[in-house]
Amino acid sequence: MQARGDRLAALVAERELDRLLVTDLVNVRYLTGFGGTNGACVCGEGVRVFLTDFRYAERAEAEVEGWDVVTVTDDWLGGMAERLTGRSGFEDHQMSVRTLKKLEEKLPDGVTLEGAGGTVEKLRRVKDKAELAAIASAAELADEIWRWSLGRGLAGRTELDVAGAAEARMRELGAEPSFSTIVAAGSHGALPHAEPGEREIGPGELVVFDMGAKLDGYCSDGTRTFATGEPGERARAVYEVVREAQEAALGAVRAGRQAEAVDTVARDPIAAAGYGERFGHGLGHGVGLEVHEEPRVSQRSEDVLEVGEVVTIEPGIYLPGELGVRIEDLVVVTDDGHRNLSGLPKDLQLVD
Amino acid sequence: MQARGDRLAALVAERELDRLLVTDLVNVRYLTGFGGTNGACVCGEGVRVFLTDFRYAERAEAEVEGWDVVTVTDDWLGGMAERLTGRSGFEDHQMSVRTLKKLEEKLPDGVTLEGAGGTVEKLRRVKDKAELAAIASAAELADEIWRWSLGRGLAGRTELDVAGAAEARMRELGAEPSFSTIVAAGSHGALPHAEPGEREIGPGELVVFDMGAKLDGYCSDGTRTFATGEPGERARAVYEVVREAQEAALGAVRAGRQAEAVDTVARDPIAAAGYGERFGHGLGHGVGLEVHEEPRVSQRSEDVLEVGEVVTIEPGIYLPGELGVRIEDLVVVTDDGHRNLSGLPKDLQLVD
Repeated sequence: MQARGDRLAALVAERELDRLLVTDLVNVRYLTGFGGTNGACVCGEGVRVFLTDFRYAERAEAEVEGWDVVTVTDDWLGGMAERLTGRSGFEDHQMSVRTLKKLEEKLPDGVTLEGAGGTVEKLRRVKDKAELAAIASAAELADEIWRWSLGRGLAGRTELDVAGAAEARMRELGAEPSFSTIVAAGSHGALPHAEPGEREIGPGELVVFDMGAKLDGYCSDGTRTFATGEPGERARAVYEVVREAQEAALGAVRAGRQAEAVDTVARDPIAAAGYGERFGHGLGHGVGLEVHEEPRVSQRSEDVLEVGEVVTIEPGIYLPGELGVRIEDLVVVTDDGHRNLSGLPKDLQLVD
Repeated sequence: MQARGDRLAALVAERELDRLLVTDLVNVRYLTGFGGTNGACVCGEGVRVFLTDFRYAERAEAEVEGWDVVTVTDDWLGGMAERLTGRSGFEDHQMSVRTLKKLEEKLPDGVTLEGAGGTVEKLRRVKDKAELAAIASAAELADEIWRWSLGRGLAGRTELDVAGAAEARMRELGAEPSFSTIVAAGSHGALPHAEPGEREIGPGELVVFDMGAKLDGYCSDGTRTFATGEPGERARAVYEVVREAQEAALGAVRAGRQAEAVDTVARDPIAAAGYGERFGHGLGHGVGLEVHEEPRVSQRSEDVLEVGEVVTIEPGIYLPGELGVRIEDLVVVTDDGHRNLSGLPKDLQLVD
């Protein structure tokens, strides 16, 4: 935690700020280790202050490392304001318009505020060893749940039943879902963000199964598309296009590469097969304390991949009214490629 | 949903606004019925527009009633901006500083924005029949879980085990926790927001058990303090003080009464018994789509209770290092008093 505060202080100085006020709770957790629901911190040269209220005073003493813990008893915004000096940055992507207005009323003379949202997120992109281990554990646990789910069979159950059982199992194993599990069969699979429904999964259908576990605060994210028996030629053909695109994109992941270029490597073969319009989302995104974080891997991304980033690679083809296929791995970017954290096979698996 | 839009339009006119842009997702759900994760709406005289993106187009058509559904394909903030006219209100308690800045860049000529956060929350305070039924069902389900939990016993299990089993049972019954269940035994009960821990619950301890269910979007909230066998004279005495304070406060609930005055009715006997400093939180809060919403029932509240509001009444005494007691009911405010949605007894129950 000490190191994170030091790295942040360097970024704050680089931006020519005297202080940075961090109010996004995930960022606060990342910097200080605090897991409660009310906290903020102020970082600058020689300054590492963590603020919370009386409810969390005890918890903060136990959890927070490398930051001075201050319990604000009454005036929460005033407690922040009095610790700001000179040009102070704040998280403008998180702070509400109303809160900023109230905070400004409490600022000491001579202090100016400047939007600096995204600074901590930049640090969070590259994971350290402990973070990589936590994400790998979450991914392993999710793999275990997929195997367990397939063992119970898909056909004849409702999407909701499959998803609910998987989430219950995840909780039994001490984790929780990092997002609402997607189980979408047949034409329902054509909705990239389908919610599991009461519909019974039939035979010979493709089933998109998108799931993530959250363990010790860190998330995993992955997708497999299964078939409940022979799904037919067209479904197989679409599956193969996605699979090849996914493998090609994995092969393109490497530190120093433009994220946009990796997206293109997946997008081109899908377009060449005539499904360019049917892959309507970006190729992937970073994963860590949040299941969607930086960097973005898409045509709009300006990010360059770095060693230690963890990203999803998840191309898909969605044919409205017919079917959907998505295949998603979670990988760590390395110097010469990637390390894949997803352990499930990617041949089209026919399951019960 | 039609009626809610109409009531909101009346408030918008009352505030001399031409339009209100609603971006808080809970507020959007309340107004339109939309349950997805990206939506906004614009309300004004003769205008009821709901905006979402392509991912939710189908879902919105199925769920949204009484609002024109518009799918914004590319420029989300631009889609909102072009539907605003004249003096337009926005939810300044929800919108981030950065989003406002981007939105302002896209406003048509002559449109000005004004902070109007809290307008929809005002509507949400008074529940209609369907909402009251949903909250009552959630509360009944939670009662069932308490009975089930007591049937399995508390002593000899860890707090985490008791809380985890209760939440798993809740999910089996089709609901989910409306907040993280609190099970806090012995001295741990002295932390009002304790998280369940690995500590085994001993004999003769007080156990604070605070739980809520969320069913069809609506929350319940309630607390009982149980004893795992005879807890001793002092614990019993503290329990009785809280119980009497709670009953007195319930007796004071009635439409037209100041929420602050109801808080005082509970606070006075606790102070008279010498525990004034040990009741460090407000008496209660509104419950609905969110587990904490308006009105607030505390010394700082300026709210006056109205027929159809649903509030908690939850005094507590917390003796650091020793024990905690909290008793919480969920009640509907009526013309001549209240209707209690919590069905569990409030005598100190000695359980296994």
